[in-house]
Amino acid sequence: MVLLIQCIDQVGLVAAIAAILAKDGINIVSMREFVDTADNRFFARVVLAGEMDSASLLTQLTARLPANAAINLVTSNEKKLILLVTKEYHCLGDLLIRHHFKTLGAGIQCVIGNRNTLQDICRRFDIPFHFQTHEAMEKPAFESALLHIIQQYNADYLVLAKFMRILSDGFVAKFPNRLINIHHSFLPAFTGSSPYRQAFDRGVKLIGATAHFVTNELDEGPIISQQIIPVTHSFTTLDMVHSGKEIETAVLARALQLVIEDRVLVYKNKTIVFD
Amino acid sequence: MVLLIQCIDQVGLVAAIAAILAKDGINIVSMREFVDTADNRFFARVVLAGEMDSASLLTQLTARLPANAAINLVTSNEKKLILLVTKEYHCLGDLLIRHHFKTLGAGIQCVIGNRNTLQDICRRFDIPFHFQTHEAMEKPAFESALLHIIQQYNADYLVLAKFMRILSDGFVAKFPNRLINIHHSFLPAFTGSSPYRQAFDRGVKLIGATAHFVTNELDEGPIISQQIIPVTHSFTTLDMVHSGKEIETAVLARALQLVIEDRVLVYKNKTIVFD
Amino acid sequence: MVLLIQCIDQVGLVAAIAAILAKDGINIVSMREFVDTADNRFFARVVLAGEMDSASLLTQLTARLPANAAINLVTSNEKKLILLVTKEYHCLGDLLIRHHFKTLGAGIQCVIGNRNTLQDICRRFDIPFHFQTHEAMEKPAFESALLHIIQQYNADYLVLAKFMRILSDGFVAKFPNRLINIHHSFLPAFTGSSPYRQAFDRGVKLIGATAHFVTNELDEGPIISQQIIPVTHSFTTLDMVHSGKEIETAVLARALQLVIEDRVLVYKNKTIVFD
Amino acid sequence: MVLLIQCIDQVGLVAAIAAILAKDGINIVSMREFVDTADNRFFARVVLAGEMDSASLLTQLTARLPANAAINLVTSNEKKLILLVTKEYHCLGDLLIRHHFKTLGAGIQCVIGNRNTLQDICRRFDIPFHFQTHEAMEKPAFESALLHIIQQYNADYLVLAKFMRILSDGFVAKFPNRLINIHHSFLPAFTGSSPYRQAFDRGVKLIGATAHFVTNELDEGPIISQQIIPVTHSFTTLDMVHSGKEIETAVLARALQLVIEDRVLVYKNKTIVFD
Repeated sequence: MVLLIQCIDQVGLVAAIAAILAKDGINIVSMREFVDTADNRFFARVVLAGEMDSASLLTQLTARLPANAAINLVTSNEKKLILLVTKEYHCLGDLLIRHHFKTLGAGIQCVIGNRNTLQDICRRFDIPFHFQTHEAMEKPAFESALLHIIQQYNADYLVLAKFMRILSDGFVAKFPNRLINIHHSFLPAFTGSSPYRQAFDRGVKLIGATAHFVTNELDEGPIISQQIIPVTHSFTTLDMVHSGKEIETAVLARALQLVIEDRVLVYKNKTIVFD
Repeated sequence: MVLLIQCIDQVGLVAAIAAILAKDGINIVSMREFVDTADNRFFARVVLAGEMDSASLLTQLTARLPANAAINLVTSNEKKLILLVTKEYHCLGDLLIRHHFKTLGAGIQCVIGNRNTLQDICRRFDIPFHFQTHEAMEKPAFESALLHIIQQYNADYLVLAKFMRILSDGFVAKFPNRLINIHHSFLPAFTGSSPYRQAFDRGVKLIGATAHFVTNELDEGPIISQQIIPVTHSFTTLDMVHSGKEIETAVLARALQLVIEDRVLVYKNKTIVFD
Repeated sequence: MVLLIQCIDQVGLVAAIAAILAKDGINIVSMREFVDTADNRFFARVVLAGEMDSASLLTQLTARLPANAAINLVTSNEKKLILLVTKEYHCLGDLLIRHHFKTLGAGIQCVIGNRNTLQDICRRFDIPFHFQTHEAMEKPAFESALLHIIQQYNADYLVLAKFMRILSDGFVAKFPNRLINIHHSFLPAFTGSSPYRQAFDRGVKLIGATAHFVTNELDEGPIISQQIIPVTHSFTTLDMVHSGKEIETAVLARALQLVIEDRVLVYKNKTIVFD
Repeated sequence: MVLLIQCIDQVGLVAAIAAILAKDGINIVSMREFVDTADNRFFARVVLAGEMDSASLLTQLTARLPANAAINLVTSNEKKLILLVTKEYHCLGDLLIRHHFKTLGAGIQCVIGNRNTLQDICRRFDIPFHFQTHEAMEKPAFESALLHIIQQYNADYLVLAKFMRILSDGFVAKFPNRLINIHHSFLPAFTGSSPYRQAFDRGVKLIGATAHFVTNELDEGPIISQQIIPVTHSFTTLDMVHSGKEIETAVLARALQLVIEDRVLVYKNKTIVFD
């Protein structure tokens, strides 16, 4: 059981939380906390063990913690994901393999593609694939169709695993802190389209990938994970694309692991990651 | 003020510690704890703020924590270091620069060299340099001479900053968890002498450096920090030596920072590093 | 077309090779050379473009280069691989995905497992799987059975993609520089079995993976590629296993890419990698 | 002796260069070439050994290579540097140590500071320090004063080793490909002032440093070297500043090594780095 807390900071919060847990005989397996002193904000992640009355625990914590504290006692139910894809296979393939061998730590409910390129690979893994073209449609109609599919499932997170359409503010607003994207640059460098082309033109000596929650500002949402790899003058744009896929795959997998294990809290436009 | 605790694990330790601090109105700026479940051992580092009666705090903690708990309330006094060197300048130069500009976080009491090569650079920084040759001496006499110098100062740590003599068990035993070495390989690969020659002969694709506490087992003490850099077939042994100096310098600086900031606990042959 | 050359070094080799190519109107797309000055040995990799008479080119090169030069003019035929596995899926899954989407750059002829755990995933990708148990068999009989399967195909390389049996010297000798293994440590640290357990016991701050050609010395063959990732005191052996799988997968994929693209030359117990 | 060549690409350039060298009995110790196929441009770096008539060699190369080829036969004279600094010591300190122990591979002619903070450390290393304030001066007068100092020396490169003034286009234009800056971000992210503040505000999970040639576009010149280090939510802006200094120091040292060893060619807004 994982307990996530976010609230205004006060003296004695750790002691108060620990005391409530101790009183009920709940053992603290591990505890991580962080205080954003500039914003006077407290964040904690506590892994609990032992028998517990969840409702009672929440009541006691709510009574003791500052008003408006966000308290989340995460049960061990498996997280559920919906993946949105276009044509590139590398992130999807990696996630399907992990899912198939039960190391993803989450269930893939279905995959939605605005191309049907990746239908076959989903079929091979017995994962439902919904082909929903964006062509010959206005964006509102396309997004309504997506939502219609999404609503058939009960997903915790939507993962844009190389989904090459920009979603509207209205769509994004339906999934606050639940919509995760992999962007193929070390943000904030090279926002928008063709980041590898931009990287090539700039002559950088490293390229990167960034997994982030999606907000209404394109490529500006809270960053969960980032990695880079070195490149040289001999890399063409296509070489960067190929090498970049390796870290896109790794960064998205890492970000999902952090999210699935309830290690990520969001505050304003940043993440607190208890890894 | 930093509070370091190491003891047998029990249910409720975090709560107990936090309660004692809260009762005295001491604020927890940050708290990190770790339980070695295999060995049933509890480790914590707590950064405290506010007025406090240190003696009272220690008494309360001692009374509440398990028997034989190691409780260390570190005052803010600057740590004192003695550096031991031979001929290579890179680690020493880096530490002298940091010390000179007051970012080392510790005072360099003196430098002891078994060669006089580095006397001049110490003089330029107004740091006492003691030249103590090992030549034409038995090891016991050499070490007695070293100890005679060391005893003139009140050092918290001895740092072997590229000191190319092997110290006896008896010498090492005088400085438990206080003697820090930088070894020029990613231990446990390439223990002993000429690790870069060994790395060249083996054809590795990466070389490394390891900072560790010294124990009676050569190159076997608790590891504090390690880093590697890639190498290629085109590296000669000398190229590896040159590139390796960069990470030796970085790794020793990093390890000292961790130690100086009281972020390192030692248990058996391992370190717990709250970075 | 890729031209690989390995021979005794002489003054004028680059000029001689370039002149032969220029005379026949063959363009040098890229050229990499390396001289091992200690061993007086010359290595080159030249990417060629344009119409060429391969036989004539080889004749001219052989006539001009030192005696016993190893000259290899690689045609563009796709390399063929056989994968040997036991139970762990991560390397195999990654290679199957790359193969399926035609970015492996090689054909997977079949997979041989000494367990049948991974039969199902191969079936899903329409890759022949041969289950050959090692149980209740002497090693010679087991290896004969393996060879019987291998001889049904025409493989350029055998890849031990987490194959947990040690092969005999006689078996290994049949595939010089054609047998590739992924070892789950940064060799030469932690040879042999349970390297993550060894790493945990030693308290290292980084763990690694090494892809290498297999020779008769266990874990001592020429290293192709290595990577590491940082770990902390909080990693259990199992955590290291899980994190290690990520770099095992990456390192084996990288090593195979280098081999498949004819970027790796072997000399004595080392590789020259023109990446 | 190092030969650097940059020209329009043609079939047979490597053969032609190698033939000229072979004819004169000059040995090729190593040769690296790169063809920018998009721009049809050829770059080469050749390390030569043996007796040679430089003038004759240049004449032959000029006659054979395409018109307007840039041919640079670098003699082994030590490069000369002038360092410009403000108040931060870390890059300067590192370079002074390397210079003092003769591993910089270049001579530091003098240091110019627009503050006098770093005068003392230069004095300790017997390096001339020129204090030239920018206060109470218009930029043209300030830059004239700088130029007056610079002209007293015969420097190959000007190094902005944490020089916190923006130089005018006119000043920059006097030192094409000879003016090197260290910028404290992974460009093109966070151009301009306070990149660590920008990085903190954006919530990135890595910070970086970039060494580049200075052109008239602020922070837009050809990149020589870049590195990053990971950061977490717990880093304040000041923590990023402190950690960032480590990679600023490393990246500038690396870039200078590449430049000093004649491994960097510039074409348009990019570098070709034969490392």
